[in-house]
Amino acid sequence: MTLLLVFAIIEGITEIETDFNFGGVNLQEAELLPREKVFRDPVHNYIHVQYKVILDLIDTPEFQRLRRIHQLGTSMYTFDGAEHSRFSHSLGVYETTREIIENFERNYPTKTPGDGLWDDSQKLVALCAALLHDIGHGPYSHTFEHIFHTNHEAITQEIITSPATAVNKILRQISPEFPQQVASVIDHTYPNPQVVQMISSQIDADRMDYLLRDAYFTGTKYGVFDLTRILRVMRTYKDGIAFDQQGMHAVEDYIVSRFQMYQQVYFHPVSRSMEVILMHLLQRGKELYESGQLEDTQAPKLLIPFFEKDFTLQDYLKLDDGVLNTYFIYWRDYQDDILRDLAGRFLFRRPLKSAQFNDQTKHLIPHLRELVEEAGYDPKYYTAINDSYDLPYDAYTPDSEESKTQIEIMQPDGSLEELSTLSPIVAAITGRETGDERFYFPKEMLQKPSDSIDLFNPVYAEFQQYLRNGALIDPQKE
Amino acid sequence: MTLLLVFAIIEGITEIETDFNFGGVNLQEAELLPREKVFRDPVHNYIHVQYKVILDLIDTPEFQRLRRIHQLGTSMYTFDGAEHSRFSHSLGVYETTREIIENFERNYPTKTPGDGLWDDSQKLVALCAALLHDIGHGPYSHTFEHIFHTNHEAITQEIITSPATAVNKILRQISPEFPQQVASVIDHTYPNPQVVQMISSQIDADRMDYLLRDAYFTGTKYGVFDLTRILRVMRTYKDGIAFDQQGMHAVEDYIVSRFQMYQQVYFHPVSRSMEVILMHLLQRGKELYESGQLEDTQAPKLLIPFFEKDFTLQDYLKLDDGVLNTYFIYWRDYQDDILRDLAGRFLFRRPLKSAQFNDQTKHLIPHLRELVEEAGYDPKYYTAINDSYDLPYDAYTPDSEESKTQIEIMQPDGSLEELSTLSPIVAAITGRETGDERFYFPKEMLQKPSDSIDLFNPVYAEFQQYLRNGALIDPQKE
Amino acid sequence: MTLLLVFAIIEGITEIETDFNFGGVNLQEAELLPREKVFRDPVHNYIHVQYKVILDLIDTPEFQRLRRIHQLGTSMYTFDGAEHSRFSHSLGVYETTREIIENFERNYPTKTPGDGLWDDSQKLVALCAALLHDIGHGPYSHTFEHIFHTNHEAITQEIITSPATAVNKILRQISPEFPQQVASVIDHTYPNPQVVQMISSQIDADRMDYLLRDAYFTGTKYGVFDLTRILRVMRTYKDGIAFDQQGMHAVEDYIVSRFQMYQQVYFHPVSRSMEVILMHLLQRGKELYESGQLEDTQAPKLLIPFFEKDFTLQDYLKLDDGVLNTYFIYWRDYQDDILRDLAGRFLFRRPLKSAQFNDQTKHLIPHLRELVEEAGYDPKYYTAINDSYDLPYDAYTPDSEESKTQIEIMQPDGSLEELSTLSPIVAAITGRETGDERFYFPKEMLQKPSDSIDLFNPVYAEFQQYLRNGALIDPQKE
Amino acid sequence: MTLLLVFAIIEGITEIETDFNFGGVNLQEAELLPREKVFRDPVHNYIHVQYKVILDLIDTPEFQRLRRIHQLGTSMYTFDGAEHSRFSHSLGVYETTREIIENFERNYPTKTPGDGLWDDSQKLVALCAALLHDIGHGPYSHTFEHIFHTNHEAITQEIITSPATAVNKILRQISPEFPQQVASVIDHTYPNPQVVQMISSQIDADRMDYLLRDAYFTGTKYGVFDLTRILRVMRTYKDGIAFDQQGMHAVEDYIVSRFQMYQQVYFHPVSRSMEVILMHLLQRGKELYESGQLEDTQAPKLLIPFFEKDFTLQDYLKLDDGVLNTYFIYWRDYQDDILRDLAGRFLFRRPLKSAQFNDQTKHLIPHLRELVEEAGYDPKYYTAINDSYDLPYDAYTPDSEESKTQIEIMQPDGSLEELSTLSPIVAAITGRETGDERFYFPKEMLQKPSDSIDLFNPVYAEFQQYLRNGALIDPQKE
Repeated sequence: MTLLLVFAIIEGITEIETDFNFGGVNLQEAELLPREKVFRDPVHNYIHVQYKVILDLIDTPEFQRLRRIHQLGTSMYTFDGAEHSRFSHSLGVYETTREIIENFERNYPTKTPGDGLWDDSQKLVALCAALLHDIGHGPYSHTFEHIFHTNHEAITQEIITSPATAVNKILRQISPEFPQQVASVIDHTYPNPQVVQMISSQIDADRMDYLLRDAYFTGTKYGVFDLTRILRVMRTYKDGIAFDQQGMHAVEDYIVSRFQMYQQVYFHPVSRSMEVILMHLLQRGKELYESGQLEDTQAPKLLIPFFEKDFTLQDYLKLDDGVLNTYFIYWRDYQDDILRDLAGRFLFRRPLKSAQFNDQTKHLIPHLRELVEEAGYDPKYYTAINDSYDLPYDAYTPDSEESKTQIEIMQPDGSLEELSTLSPIVAAITGRETGDERFYFPKEMLQKPSDSIDLFNPVYAEFQQYLRNGALIDPQKE
Repeated sequence: MTLLLVFAIIEGITEIETDFNFGGVNLQEAELLPREKVFRDPVHNYIHVQYKVILDLIDTPEFQRLRRIHQLGTSMYTFDGAEHSRFSHSLGVYETTREIIENFERNYPTKTPGDGLWDDSQKLVALCAALLHDIGHGPYSHTFEHIFHTNHEAITQEIITSPATAVNKILRQISPEFPQQVASVIDHTYPNPQVVQMISSQIDADRMDYLLRDAYFTGTKYGVFDLTRILRVMRTYKDGIAFDQQGMHAVEDYIVSRFQMYQQVYFHPVSRSMEVILMHLLQRGKELYESGQLEDTQAPKLLIPFFEKDFTLQDYLKLDDGVLNTYFIYWRDYQDDILRDLAGRFLFRRPLKSAQFNDQTKHLIPHLRELVEEAGYDPKYYTAINDSYDLPYDAYTPDSEESKTQIEIMQPDGSLEELSTLSPIVAAITGRETGDERFYFPKEMLQKPSDSIDLFNPVYAEFQQYLRNGALIDPQKE
Repeated sequence: MTLLLVFAIIEGITEIETDFNFGGVNLQEAELLPREKVFRDPVHNYIHVQYKVILDLIDTPEFQRLRRIHQLGTSMYTFDGAEHSRFSHSLGVYETTREIIENFERNYPTKTPGDGLWDDSQKLVALCAALLHDIGHGPYSHTFEHIFHTNHEAITQEIITSPATAVNKILRQISPEFPQQVASVIDHTYPNPQVVQMISSQIDADRMDYLLRDAYFTGTKYGVFDLTRILRVMRTYKDGIAFDQQGMHAVEDYIVSRFQMYQQVYFHPVSRSMEVILMHLLQRGKELYESGQLEDTQAPKLLIPFFEKDFTLQDYLKLDDGVLNTYFIYWRDYQDDILRDLAGRFLFRRPLKSAQFNDQTKHLIPHLRELVEEAGYDPKYYTAINDSYDLPYDAYTPDSEESKTQIEIMQPDGSLEELSTLSPIVAAITGRETGDERFYFPKEMLQKPSDSIDLFNPVYAEFQQYLRNGALIDPQKE
Repeated sequence: MTLLLVFAIIEGITEIETDFNFGGVNLQEAELLPREKVFRDPVHNYIHVQYKVILDLIDTPEFQRLRRIHQLGTSMYTFDGAEHSRFSHSLGVYETTREIIENFERNYPTKTPGDGLWDDSQKLVALCAALLHDIGHGPYSHTFEHIFHTNHEAITQEIITSPATAVNKILRQISPEFPQQVASVIDHTYPNPQVVQMISSQIDADRMDYLLRDAYFTGTKYGVFDLTRILRVMRTYKDGIAFDQQGMHAVEDYIVSRFQMYQQVYFHPVSRSMEVILMHLLQRGKELYESGQLEDTQAPKLLIPFFEKDFTLQDYLKLDDGVLNTYFIYWRDYQDDILRDLAGRFLFRRPLKSAQFNDQTKHLIPHLRELVEEAGYDPKYYTAINDSYDLPYDAYTPDSEESKTQIEIMQPDGSLEELSTLSPIVAAITGRETGDERFYFPKEMLQKPSDSIDLFNPVYAEFQQYLRNGALIDPQKE
C-alpha cells in the first residue's frame, strides 16, 4: 500500500530528490553462484542460472509445486504430448528474459539516466518477476477459479509479498522492498516500462515461451517462429521495447504463429469439451458437499477448505492436478450416479461431442437440450454452450485502449511505426473475430438408431437431424 | 507344439484340434473404422488408427490410466521436459509396429506358409501387443515394485487375460483365444518369431520409440537416430527380423544412441538420488503403518491394500503418480520427523548428493555413514549405495545366451552377419561395463564448515576430506 | 481401349481420330528395379526409386546437367545457404508425387472407370512428368530468357519429345506415345485432371517441394509446413484433387508459408539487385558482340549461338551457371569498362542499392537518374526499376479465371468448399497486392559527402536528400 | 623463441624486448560497423559481423570466389544436397570462433598477463584467421593439387601476405604486421596457443562447423552434436583450451559424430569413384596438352598456366569448379576417345564400380586389370586402387606425437584429464583403423553376360567370379 502511494507520488512530482534508482538492485551485491548452473530444456536447450537468488527461488516448495500442474490443462487430452508443466514454462520465461537482458546489456547500456537505454540495476527484478509470474496458478486454473472463486493473480502477489512463504524470504534477502518491486512488475505498476513489457506485452517473454513450448510438446508446427531473431532485434526506447525494422518479418511471423496456435490448439473443441466435463464434475462435487451428501471416506480432504469458502494460502499450495485426480478416483466409488459418471468421463477421457452454432441456429439449442433430457441425461451436467474459460484469445488489436497492445517497429531514422501499418498479413488478421461457438452434448446422442433396439432410438434420430458437417442446422429450412 | 500345449493347460483345455493358424486373425473380419483416426504425436507426427479394436483399447480405463504415470519416473527431476507419460509411449510403440508391418505387407508378403515372409493374419495380434505391452505398469514402477513386491509384467498379463477388465472384453470380441495370443507375444512365447521380435528384441518398436521419445522430451540430442531408415531396411526371414546391409549405418547409429542415452540420461546420478529418496520414503511409510503409527487422517487410503499385502487388480488400477504424491502431501503434516522430511525432499526436489566409489575406496563407506549419523541423519534413510533399481541397462551383447540379443545384417547374397562383426564402433561398445557405483548422502554434509558456527562443523570437515572431483578418496593415501 | 472410349464420351466427343493413348501404362509391364534404390535427401530424408525408367531418366545427360543450374538463381547472394540445384528439386518433386500416389493407391483405388478414384495406370506418366517438369531450365533462367528470348517450357517439351535426346529414348521404351503423354501433363493438356493437378495446381508437388527445399537451404523458417499431413488428407474426386476437411489447418498453413516465402525470400531486394546486374551484364556483352567488339579470346564460345539467335537444342544443353560465370571471368580482362565492371560486380557480389517508390514519388526517378549520370555512371546500366523477372508471385486467387487456382476442402458429407470461404487467414491474404517497386542505383551514391574531398560530393548530397528509411521522398514536400 | 625470431626477421626487426603481447590489436581502434550486419545461415541461424574489417574481407574478390568452389567436392554426387560452397563454411568458422570468443570475453577475461585467461587484444587476429583459413583452396582441391602440384596452404599464406591482394590490403589497415600475424595463426606458429587451438585442434571452429554443415546439407543425422553446449564448456588455460567436465558428454558425442561422418559420408565409395574419374580426366587432359594434342578451340585457356607449370596467384584465383566443368564440356567434343568419355562420365555422373579388398585378396588385382583391358578399357584410366586423396581421416589419437591431438577435460579441482581416459566410448574408437581399400573398375564389367551377345561376355563372366557381397574373393579358394 505504502508502495502504491510512492508510485503515485513519483508519477506526479516535478522534483525527485531520491535516488532515481527506484526498483534497482546493485548487481555487485547480488550473490553470484560460484559456477553457472544449467538446466537442460528442450525448447531453449539450456536454462542458465548465474544468481544465487534465482536458484534459491527455484528450490522453494511454492515453485517446485508447479511441476505438478500441467501447463495446458485439458489440452493434453487432445494433444497427447502436451503433458508439460508450469514449472518448465516458468523456467523458460526466466531464460527468455535473461536473453533479452543479455542483448540489452551488450548493445543498449544506459549512459545517462532517462536516456531510454537499459539500466542494469533492473536486471534482478526483471529476472525474478519472469520466474515467478505464474507462481499463483492452481490445478486446472481457470476452471478451478470459476468454481471456487480463487484468483491466481492475487495469489501470485500474495506468495511474493506474504512473509510466510519461502519465496518471500529469499526475495527479502536482496532488500526489504524487493518482494514488492517484483510483485509490481507482475501487476504492471512497476515504473520502468521496459521491465514491465519484457514480462507482459504483445511480444513478451511469457508469450514467446509458451508459444514455442506448447508447439514443441503438442507437436504442432504452427507455433514455431524465430525467437533468436526477435531477441536480436529487440531494442529499448524511452517508453519500453521496440523492434528494429530489420527484423520485422520475424515479428510478423510470431503474430501469425500465435493466431494459428489459438485457432488450432488452444481453442480445440475436444479440449474445451473435457473442460466442460471437469467444470460440471467439480460443480456436482461442490453441490453434494454443500447438501451434506459427500460421505467421509470420499471426502476430498484437501478440497474441503475450498468447498467451505474458507481457505488459507497454505491450503491452496497443497493442491495440484494429481490431488484433484485422486479425489476423482475416490468419487468413482461414490453412490451419486452423476458424480461417478462424470469422474469416469474425465479420468478416462470420454469427451462430450459438439456442434458449431451461430445466430441463425442458436434458437435450436433449447429444443436439443430437451432431447438430451429425453434420452436420459440431465442437461445441466451433460450439455453446455461454448465454455472456453481457459485461455481467452489475446488477439493483436493495436487500436485497443490498453497500452500494452502496440508493437512498435523502429525505422532506420529512429522513428516508430505500429506493426500492422507495415505488414499486410498482420493487418489482415488484426482484431479479427475468432469466435467458435459450440453446443456440447453426450456422444451417445450420435449413435446410429439402426444399430440397436434402444428405447431412445427415435430421440437419437430426431437429434441427428439437427446436425450436418459439424454444425447445427435447422431441418425445417433445408 | 510343446508351447501350444502349455498354453492349453493354462487355459484348462485338454483338446486342441487345429493349431496351425495359431495367432492369426483374418483381417477381413476385423472391423475397420469408417475413417482412419489420427492422434497428433511430437515424435511420429501422427499416430494412425485404422482398426476399431485399437481405438476401443485406447479408450479403456486401464489404458487411459497410463496418462497419469510418467514414462521416466524420477528422471523428470533432472530433465525438466521429461514429463511425458506411458500413455504416449504406448501409442508410439503401436505406431512404430504399424509402420514396420506396413513395410512388410508391401515388400515381403508371404506366398507359401513357412517361406519366412510376412503373414498378414499376424497384423492384429502384433498391433494389440505393441499397444498393451506396458499396460501393467504402476506408479514409479521399479521403486514401487521393490517395496511392495508387485510385478508389472504379471499384471500386464492379468489385465489382458482376466475377464474382469475392459481390455480383455474388447480383445475377446476378436476371438476367444485372442487375449491369450496377445499376452503370449508380450511374454515371448508366441510362436511367430517376427511378431515377438517386433515387440521385444534388440531393435524393437518399444526401444526405438522410447529412445526417440525420451530424447525428444529430455531435449538431449544423443538419442536421435534415423527411424525411417531402419524401418525401411527391416526385413523378414524365417527366424525373425533382419536388416538389409544398405542400412547398416542407421542400425549402428541406433546402438550408439542407446549407449549414450543410458550413460547420460537413464543413469543420471541425480535421478537415481531422487529414486533413493522415494524408496526410503515409501519404506518409512510402510514401517510406520505396520507398527500402527500412521493415523487415520494421514492414512493413504488407496495404498493400504499394498501395505497389508492383500490387493486386487482393481486396487492396483486405482494407483498413479498423482495418488502417491497426494499421500506425500498428506505426510508433510505428519508427526514423524523422517517421514515428513523425506516427503518434502521428494516433493520439492532436494536430492541427496553422491560420490563415485570403486573397489579401492569402497571400504571407506562404513566410516562415512558413521559421520552422517554423527551429523544427525539416520544413515538407513539418508545414505545409500548405488540403487539403480530402475532401468537396468540392456547393453548389446551378441554373445549372450539370450536369443534376442543378436542383430542380423542381411548381405546382398542373402546371408546373415551379426552386427558387431561388421561395425567397428558397435564392436567397441559391445558388452562394455557401464557401472557407475555411487555413495549417496545428504547435501548438508557438504556445507562449508567456515560458513557457520554449526555444532557439526568438525564432522562436515572430516567428511569432506574423503571427497575429490566427485569421487571418494582415501585421505591417508594421498 | 474401352477406357479411352468412356473418357471420350465423358468429355463430350463422339469421334476419336488420334490414338492419343490416354489412360496410361500397364504397370505390370514397367520394369521394376531388382532392388529399390534410394537417394539421401535433406528435405524428404530419402528419395525412393522403384522403376527402372525413373533411374534411367535420372542418369541422362539432360537431367544430370540440372546439377549445374542453381534452383534459386541470384537468391544465393542474399541467402548464402541457397546453393542447391534444380537437380535436387526435381528429385524432390518426383518423391512428393510418388508419396501422393502411394496414398491414392492405398486409400482411393478406382473400382469402376469414371468413379473419380485413382487409376494406377496413371502412375508412371505422373512420376515421369514430375521428374522432368523443369528439365528445360537453363542457367539463370528468367534473366537469360529475357535477353536471349529462349523459353524453358518449350525446351522442356522439346527435350521430352525430340527423338534426339536420351530422355526421349528412355521414355519411348515404355511406349511410342509415352513421351507425348508425359509432355502433355506438363503443359496441362493431359486429360486426367488428377495427374495434371499433382504436378501443377495451387498445392502441387512442385510448389510443395520448392517451398520446403528453399526454406531448408536458405535457413528461413517461414516456408515450413506439414507436408506429411497434407499428403495424408489429399483425396481424389472426379475433377481432380481435394483436401479432407480434417487437414484444413495444414493447407491453411501452407498458404501462409507460401505468402511469407514470397515476401521474405523470393522478392528480396538484394537478390533482385544481383539480377539487375546480371541482366545488364549480359545485355552489354550481347551489344558488344553485335557491334563486333568482343575479341576472339574473350568470346564466349558456347554463348555465340545465342548472340547470333541461331541455336540448337544441343547448344542449349551445353550451358549452365558455371559456363556463364566462366565467361564473366574472361570478361574481367576485357577492355570495355562497363563490361569489366559489371562482371566484377556480379562475380564478387557488389549489388546495386535500392529504394522503394510509389505513385507519389515515381516522378522523382528521372531526376535521380540524371544525378547518377552526373556522378559518372551510365544510367542505362547502373540504374533500374523493379525488374523482378524471376519468380513472379503466384498468389492464391480463387476467383481468378484460371481453373487451377481453387483449393477445395471436402466436407464430412462429401461436398466441396473453396478454402478461403472456410479460413479467415487465407481470406485475409487472398489476392492481396504484394508489389514492392524499387529504384536501383549504385551504392556509391550513398557515400557520405563529408568523408572525402570527392569531386562528386554535391551530387551525392543532393541524391541522398531524396531518400529516407529505404524509400524515395520528395524533399520539397516535407 | 626461435619462431618469434623468425617473425622478427621477416618483419625486419632485430630486437625484441617484450613479446608477450605479440599479435594483439587494441580493439578500441578497430572500426565497428555503425550497425551489426547479419547473414542468414542455416547452420548457425545468423552470422553476426560487428567489425568493418570482417565485412571488407568478405567483400574481397578472393573471398567471394569461394562461392564457386564446392565444400565437399565429389561428395555432391553421392549426397545430392551437399552442394554448399567453401564460402558458407568459411563464414561458419568465423561465426563459431566469434561465439567462442564471446564466451571467453564474458567468463574468462584476463586480469594479469600470463594468467592463462582470455586476452581480448587477440580477438581480431582470431576472427580474421578463422574467416580466411581456407581462402587458398582451389577447385576440386586435393585432386587438383595432386595433378598440378599446387598447395592450398601455401596459397592461403600468399593471399594473406602478398601486397597484391585485396585481402592483404584490408588486413594492413589494422597494422603493418597484422597480415603476417593472421597467417601465422593459420600455420600454427602464432605464440598464443588459445588462438591457434580455436582454429586448429581436435575440437576447433573449423571441424565443428564442417561436421554440422556437412551433416545439414547431406541430410545425414550422424554429424549432429550439441555445439551450444560445447561452446559453453570451453575454457581457457595457460596452454590452450580445455573443456569443463560438466560438458564431457557433449565432447564425447562430437568425437562419435566425427567418426561416423568419416565412415559414412567422407569415405563414401561412390564419391571416391567420382574423384578417381576426375583425376584420370585431368591427367589425360594434361598428357594431351603436353604432347601437343589439345587443339586451340578445346584448349582450356585458364588451365594452360597450370599445364605449363608456370602460374601466378592471379591465374590461380581465376579458377573455380565451374571453370573446370566448362572445359570438360568443351572436351566432350574432342576427338580423343578417352578424354571425351571420361569427361562424360564426370559431367553426367557415371561412377566406376568398386569392390573392397584386403591383404588376402590384393594379389588378384593385376589379373582383374588384365580382364578390364581385355574388355576394351585402358586400365590406367579405368581402374584404380583406393585413391582417397581428399579428406584423409583425422582420427582422435591422443597418444600421437602431434601436440594438437589432446582433448583436455577440466575437473572440478582444475586438474586436466585427457578425454579417452574418462570416456569408454572415445577410448573404444580412439586411433582405430578405418581403412577401406577398394579396387575401382568400369560398371560395364558387371553387366549380365546373358543379357546380350556381347563379344566380351566370357570376360565379364570371369571377372564377376571374383566378386561377392561387394568384396574381392578368390574363386580358387572357395
